[in-house]
Amino acid sequence: MNQNEAKRKITIYDTTLRDGAQGEGIHFSTQDKLSYVKRIEEMGSLYVEAGWPGANPRDDNFFQLIKEQEVPMTHIAAFGSTCKVNEAPENSEILLKLVASGAKTITIFGKAWDLHVRDVLRTSLEENLRLIRESVSFLVKQGHDVFFDAEHFFDGFKENPDYALKCIEMALQAGASIAILCDTNGGSLPKDIALGVEMVRREFAPQELGIHVHNDSGLAVANSLVAVEAGVTQVQGTWNGYGERCGNANLSTLVPLLQVKGNYDVLSDSALHKITPFSRFAAELSNAPFDERQPYVGRSAFAHKAGMHVDAILKNHRTFEHMDPGEVGNERRILISDQAGKANIFERLRRFDPDIVKEDPLVEKAMLEIKDMENNGFQFEAAEGSLDLLLVRTLNRFTSPFEVLDYHVWSDPLRGELDSVAVVKVKVGEQTVQIAAEGNGPVNALDSALRQALASFFPILAESELVDYKVRVLDGSRGTEAIVRVIIDTRLGHEVWGTIGVSNNILKASAQALLDAINWTIWKFDEGARRARV
Amino acid sequence: MNQNEAKRKITIYDTTLRDGAQGEGIHFSTQDKLSYVKRIEEMGSLYVEAGWPGANPRDDNFFQLIKEQEVPMTHIAAFGSTCKVNEAPENSEILLKLVASGAKTITIFGKAWDLHVRDVLRTSLEENLRLIRESVSFLVKQGHDVFFDAEHFFDGFKENPDYALKCIEMALQAGASIAILCDTNGGSLPKDIALGVEMVRREFAPQELGIHVHNDSGLAVANSLVAVEAGVTQVQGTWNGYGERCGNANLSTLVPLLQVKGNYDVLSDSALHKITPFSRFAAELSNAPFDERQPYVGRSAFAHKAGMHVDAILKNHRTFEHMDPGEVGNERRILISDQAGKANIFERLRRFDPDIVKEDPLVEKAMLEIKDMENNGFQFEAAEGSLDLLLVRTLNRFTSPFEVLDYHVWSDPLRGELDSVAVVKVKVGEQTVQIAAEGNGPVNALDSALRQALASFFPILAESELVDYKVRVLDGSRGTEAIVRVIIDTRLGHEVWGTIGVSNNILKASAQALLDAINWTIWKFDEGARRARV
Repeated sequence: MNQNEAKRKITIYDTTLRDGAQGEGIHFSTQDKLSYVKRIEEMGSLYVEAGWPGANPRDDNFFQLIKEQEVPMTHIAAFGSTCKVNEAPENSEILLKLVASGAKTITIFGKAWDLHVRDVLRTSLEENLRLIRESVSFLVKQGHDVFFDAEHFFDGFKENPDYALKCIEMALQAGASIAILCDTNGGSLPKDIALGVEMVRREFAPQELGIHVHNDSGLAVANSLVAVEAGVTQVQGTWNGYGERCGNANLSTLVPLLQVKGNYDVLSDSALHKITPFSRFAAELSNAPFDERQPYVGRSAFAHKAGMHVDAILKNHRTFEHMDPGEVGNERRILISDQAGKANIFERLRRFDPDIVKEDPLVEKAMLEIKDMENNGFQFEAAEGSLDLLLVRTLNRFTSPFEVLDYHVWSDPLRGELDSVAVVKVKVGEQTVQIAAEGNGPVNALDSALRQALASFFPILAESELVDYKVRVLDGSRGTEAIVRVIIDTRLGHEVWGTIGVSNNILKASAQALLDAINWTIWKFDEGARRARV
Repeated sequence: MNQNEAKRKITIYDTTLRDGAQGEGIHFSTQDKLSYVKRIEEMGSLYVEAGWPGANPRDDNFFQLIKEQEVPMTHIAAFGSTCKVNEAPENSEILLKLVASGAKTITIFGKAWDLHVRDVLRTSLEENLRLIRESVSFLVKQGHDVFFDAEHFFDGFKENPDYALKCIEMALQAGASIAILCDTNGGSLPKDIALGVEMVRREFAPQELGIHVHNDSGLAVANSLVAVEAGVTQVQGTWNGYGERCGNANLSTLVPLLQVKGNYDVLSDSALHKITPFSRFAAELSNAPFDERQPYVGRSAFAHKAGMHVDAILKNHRTFEHMDPGEVGNERRILISDQAGKANIFERLRRFDPDIVKEDPLVEKAMLEIKDMENNGFQFEAAEGSLDLLLVRTLNRFTSPFEVLDYHVWSDPLRGELDSVAVVKVKVGEQTVQIAAEGNGPVNALDSALRQALASFFPILAESELVDYKVRVLDGSRGTEAIVRVIIDTRLGHEVWGTIGVSNNILKASAQALLDAINWTIWKFDEGARRARV
């Protein structure tokens, strides 16, 4: 038996599109859901809980459209609840819509905490057992694979263990293929989870079990791990941990944790390799900011800031890295800040001049300039384009091939489309060009004018695009006249980099960041321009 | 014996200002550190590791200045390392600067993983033991209370347990009052932590021990909890979990977890009550965005979005809340989004009209308007001022007491100070006022002009201030002409609220958000204006 065969298989049930969408600020359109399902194919075989048919037009639409799509690896699950109190399953609008969704796998939740039966359903404990039994049975008879979410199982088990177990028993007897134990309120401790899973296993083994936990105590990842160690084989969670309140168990953390640290068989190695870009994709779709400090997949996850750490990492990576970032498709980063020693700056300068030595006065010069700018509100950690531009300038490998002599902006926001005009005057070599451009808003007008003025000299600029624009007020107490920091992310091909501007005028800060973006594009991708003008 | 006496005391060692500052994007000035130490007094007696004397001028400055300050509750600790290889402690610049800092408590780290001794220190295992022994002994003889951080203890224990234990023994024999077991790389599993702590306890009990872990596997909180359960009495961490790479154990989660769920004696109840505002204060100082999904202290931590959850919460709070948010100074929120059912809207409308019934057509009307605006890029979850304004308008309780007839902005960013001019024309009752105002940047000019034009009519506006300004590009692929969403946070007294504007012109979006902020200020705080004009 080789090592692989010895690993226990853990199935991932991804509820990003359903429970994830219950997180504050998370939204998925029908089209978002379709893109998601298409892209998640690269992660291999897993379950995707895609919505609640009947809850809103977006979800209905999705299940209608997904029928026509080819998704061989992904099992699409529809989510819903048991039928209502005093209702027969065959008359239940909820159950009929689940059946009509066309999903083979249907997950329904039922109450497993007597408090909910009394205070929310306001019915008898017996009636709730009937809802579970008859709802599961009805769906199974229609040919569905039924997953039963035992809502609030752990809270219920604490207060009325017999009843919580009885709810599980009803679902299993009625033909549910798996019972998922839920810590819906996210307040359970690892020892509660271990005990609950063990007790259910004692009653129902070898029945397959799942775990679904929330992060209200910061323990969702640990609680899922504990449940897996206690024997569950299905883990429910969301990418980036989106979900109601503090979110669900974070698959972006859990998957590598189980696979790399726990030695379980979760995804293929090549799929594991894709979880960093996939997590970022999920964030983009959801319209939520990506948490860069996230374990495994965040930009900061393998980013070293303290000078002593950088020094040690360069001697042996294991000294400050618990794993190879490449395994999860992430990468090591050496940060530059006023905490950084020369080792950080030196390491980054070597990208541009492999022969530079640590004692070169340019290393010191770059470090002092960076510290000085950081004192004035710059922050290069998210603006590696501006940082690298500063470094190649320090190495005397780059001077800007153009000069901006002047620019003005007018804006008349009540006018409608193209409500702003920018005039810029630039000098390239001996030529001076003055361009006026309209735009939707003053920043767009300025961007257009700058690009139009420069595009004929540097055609590469037409290929780059601005993909994100962020503004941060550095000293809120000064209101709208505070210093603002603008960070612009630019993409060319597969590369994305940030550039930065700092000013008390948002246009000036934007112009700085735009000019750095333009200069870095030219330096990096227009070899002719770079060589001709150095 | 009452229940309180039975609780085990856990000491908090707060390294936000030192290890926290090694997180990407985290910066503290000397003044920030002084403000922090002053404010943390309200949390009661704990240790604050404030910096590394000698590492940079900010930290030196801090220890110089803190000597003159009164901080009766807080124990200030200075951080550093053992002396260097082949160096006598009395000649060690590191140790001498620690002594000169004047801090009573000194925490030094030493290597406890043989790999580091070989590959980073590049010395013999014996010599490393000498560094630990002599450094601790030197500081103890100078009259300091010495804490020993056993760096990489758990990795070291895995690969060479005898040596890792020997390092601890050296420090304790030399007089360290506590040994802190560190999972510096953050890769250890809860079972590794439990085993490590148990083995150290077996050798050295009843010696006091501490735990210091990182979050690289998403387990920092769980690993700290496991260590406490295994017998450590000091927990090291940072507020909001700031720190190198994925951060340190998050005190904002751990403190309530240990106190409320674990039944340990950590802080007083009144201090626990302050951890939500304190965590937010730490975020403001560090200049990092606050993670609103954080357990216990995040704005989303007790925020309910799904309609069914809201319905249940209104019947019994325990149904979807694992604890009372008030215990940690947080509050329940009912979110309004297109996932929200009528229950959410109804609950919020009742704030303004306690007599409204769920069936009132205005509830439906408000819900449709909100869903329509959210489809167009608005998002009311972070803009409760704009949301409430919409609701009071729906209830016909508010019409704006002024009208903006026109506005224009000019900006000439290369001009220097006051580089922008805004002209606004407003109508209040029968009076029309036209005002031009200069500003630093176009948004500031517009803000000034609007406020100047309205301040004589509504004096309350002079008391409110804009405290944050956020911009988000909604569709990055359209670059600078994309739709932007501006959210402005305004403060008046202790209240802070967000307002929102959406447009492809950043000035127009800003104007919308500013006008909502002004209208909401007037509605909420200027009773005369409100009543006169309804």
